[in-house]
Amino acid sequence: MGMISLRHVNEMRPDEVRALIRKGEITGPTAGMAGGFTQANLVILKKELAFEFLLFCQRNQKPCPILDVTDPGSPVPSITAPDADIRTDFPKYRVYKRGELADEVTDISSLWEDDMVGFLIGCSFTFEQALINNGIPVRHIEEKRNVPMYQTNIPCVPAGRFQGPMVVSMRPVPEEQAVRAVQVTSRFPAVHGGPVHIGSPETIGITDITSPDFGDAVTIKKGEVPVFWACGVTPQAVAMHVKPELMITHSPGHMLVTDVRDEQFGVL
Amino acid sequence: MGMISLRHVNEMRPDEVRALIRKGEITGPTAGMAGGFTQANLVILKKELAFEFLLFCQRNQKPCPILDVTDPGSPVPSITAPDADIRTDFPKYRVYKRGELADEVTDISSLWEDDMVGFLIGCSFTFEQALINNGIPVRHIEEKRNVPMYQTNIPCVPAGRFQGPMVVSMRPVPEEQAVRAVQVTSRFPAVHGGPVHIGSPETIGITDITSPDFGDAVTIKKGEVPVFWACGVTPQAVAMHVKPELMITHSPGHMLVTDVRDEQFGVL
Repeated sequence: MGMISLRHVNEMRPDEVRALIRKGEITGPTAGMAGGFTQANLVILKKELAFEFLLFCQRNQKPCPILDVTDPGSPVPSITAPDADIRTDFPKYRVYKRGELADEVTDISSLWEDDMVGFLIGCSFTFEQALINNGIPVRHIEEKRNVPMYQTNIPCVPAGRFQGPMVVSMRPVPEEQAVRAVQVTSRFPAVHGGPVHIGSPETIGITDITSPDFGDAVTIKKGEVPVFWACGVTPQAVAMHVKPELMITHSPGHMLVTDVRDEQFGVL
Repeated sequence: MGMISLRHVNEMRPDEVRALIRKGEITGPTAGMAGGFTQANLVILKKELAFEFLLFCQRNQKPCPILDVTDPGSPVPSITAPDADIRTDFPKYRVYKRGELADEVTDISSLWEDDMVGFLIGCSFTFEQALINNGIPVRHIEEKRNVPMYQTNIPCVPAGRFQGPMVVSMRPVPEEQAVRAVQVTSRFPAVHGGPVHIGSPETIGITDITSPDFGDAVTIKKGEVPVFWACGVTPQAVAMHVKPELMITHSPGHMLVTDVRDEQFGVL
């Protein structure tokens, strides 16, 4: 980031961060940028799949909490960041053709077509900040790793061609703070909400907690219980199985910084 | 209802109520039936409008809280009442052709087409029960009237062809209970959630509180403040303006009794 320090970027407004991303001056992960503002995942599909995908998200709100949907052909997320452009304002994108990763780019303007629909999906950054604000440790942040994510045996509710198991993220929580972790994250249904499972990984089909399907393993200390939240990787994984002609997502960790404050998604 | 007393129906299971409705033995309003279970409003549209309407609801969740969407061509609300049939299990339907009321019927099987999509939308019965359980009076129930509803100057977020102002329902609440009314109803974002306005009707474009646009006027006593919630009439009113070739809705007060308990929609 050259002369731009992370502390400086943490204190920037969302539109300032997006301007730097758009100019190519920020190309890395967005964690910690424009502190207090919600960041969003991205799935772009052609309009012919948009109804089924929106329906899938509507039926599976815990893994797929929709924050904004662009009008077909419009790159503007008019509710969450009306002066943003989803073609340029994520630091990095993944381009999938028929379900296979075809390219990773920092700008998708040249790929944009007028029947594309962008789905912005809530991400766990929002509730992790709430956990930290409540004195609940977030291990993968402490250990500077990616959150561990696992395929489960929990089926999503299908919608048309979209179907598949839920992916969850795991955070070890001291047993005496597990109830508070449920309360804190339940306030934020728009960003995955309360956990889907507490305790035994086997119950939800995870055979080896030390070897996550995505992300990195983290330390589970004595006296800690694994707590599982529905994960925003789910809709991408499910969409990938449909093998759409073209699908574009953000690269992991490279999100859109929206104009909405995390607390604005709090229910009470 | 012949030999079926209302008290008896209040204690029935949802599937028992639906069976009586399907057989034509119940054709009246469903208020008070299968107590504790959520009732749902209905909008049926052809698939070509389904994406835009679902997007409209997604963007306007307070007036348009989606509980379930049927697969195109399927009359089964698989999430909220998997053994129900939306063609027969509402006591009464309204059929709109190009935005005009064309018919009111008790069964729409003969109108059903294989590109139809049914949207079940949360209704205020759920949060009214929560208000009553908290000792907050609900005036229109006390006065045995329909809830008063008003057009406002609050614009909905448009989606494609769907746009228009929010319709709100009003309940007078004793000033000292207004905060509790906000708390109680905020627990239920799936059924309109917290109020959209408290106090002066003029602020939201209502010029005469004694003459509602839909439903009946109710008494506002000294020391009471009018509290306004987003109303499920909004999506019907908005859809009507689009003048779809065919739209079918429930008749006011004649809802589907689902298998989901009211409390299951509570956030914490």
